[in-house]
Amino acid sequence: MDEQTFRQKMRADILRLATAILQQEGLPAVQARRVAREAECSVGTIYNIFGDIDGLITAINAETLAALGKILNAALIEAPLRLGIEGRLLALALAYVYFAERNYARWDAVFRHRRPAGSEVPEFYVQDQHRLLALIEGVIGEVVRDPAGRAKAARALFGAVHGIVSLALDDRLGGQLKGELDAQVMYIVELIARGLAPDGA
Amino acid sequence: MDEQTFRQKMRADILRLATAILQQEGLPAVQARRVAREAECSVGTIYNIFGDIDGLITAINAETLAALGKILNAALIEAPLRLGIEGRLLALALAYVYFAERNYARWDAVFRHRRPAGSEVPEFYVQDQHRLLALIEGVIGEVVRDPAGRAKAARALFGAVHGIVSLALDDRLGGQLKGELDAQVMYIVELIARGLAPDGA
Repeated sequence: MDEQTFRQKMRADILRLATAILQQEGLPAVQARRVAREAECSVGTIYNIFGDIDGLITAINAETLAALGKILNAALIEAPLRLGIEGRLLALALAYVYFAERNYARWDAVFRHRRPAGSEVPEFYVQDQHRLLALIEGVIGEVVRDPAGRAKAARALFGAVHGIVSLALDDRLGGQLKGELDAQVMYIVELIARGLAPDGA
Repeated sequence: MDEQTFRQKMRADILRLATAILQQEGLPAVQARRVAREAECSVGTIYNIFGDIDGLITAINAETLAALGKILNAALIEAPLRLGIEGRLLALALAYVYFAERNYARWDAVFRHRRPAGSEVPEFYVQDQHRLLALIEGVIGEVVRDPAGRAKAARALFGAVHGIVSLALDDRLGGQLKGELDAQVMYIVELIARGLAPDGA
């Protein structure tokens, strides 16, 4: 195995083991020393590959965004165009709920991870986020024709659905939400879609 | 000072000092030993008054909800009825943004604090939450007449606005949101209000 291949295998191994720790014990357990022990490598190897522990967590989160993207793309493909904007936004939103419920620790890490003060979010990760928001932009393109307005609308729509999902999955508001998460999300998406396309476009 | 008065003074002192620690250093710094040192009391006194550290944090959060309630009530009083549903929802939403921005650590603790598994949220705290949601229910009462539907709508509305606020204040989505938080919140509230009252009620 040449050095390049070895490094790629090491990177994949570390990511897989760190993701397993995240899923079983949550984000605070993802620490360099612990991951190194599981991966049977040195802490230096982890830093060498990922820069620092935040780089490793960002790499885990990038994989989570990629997995989420697959689910959302599949939902859009399955939701025929004739469903209209509301139907396609609903398909995206319910796929998001599905993903967050079934991958809670990974999903939570995407929003819970705080980079150290002054550290910039890597450009590739910003692009990963934009790719997901672009799925929403694609759906609302017919009714929000201005590109800047469309980007703003997509972020607002995502924030709205995400807020309901995260309150429910964090079991806030006295726990009433979790049992009715799908219904809440459907409700808000219907309202928003009606507001976006008041003529029923 | 009799024992009852002493206990009340002790409770107020501990709450005030623990809140100061929260504001200066964040939720993880709010620990019994640390608070006891600042309050010049024993850890046992804290447990005696608040049950456990989660009880103390819940008491801090209850005060935060009360402070938020004052801001929201004031916003509603200042927003005249003639503004209609959209105007009054906007007044509530922007007051929520205002409070969260200016009391970030306290606001964040309300949503970040996780009770230990199996521990129930105290009934008074559930009621505190319901009182805030009731403000939204009051505004949308004209267009959502069914009480169960109204409660559901209020929670969904709160979740939507909260999601946008928390993504922006946590500086997610590549930091684009924070600068345009008010605009995002106004946008989603307008959409939702239009969806709630398509006839412009």
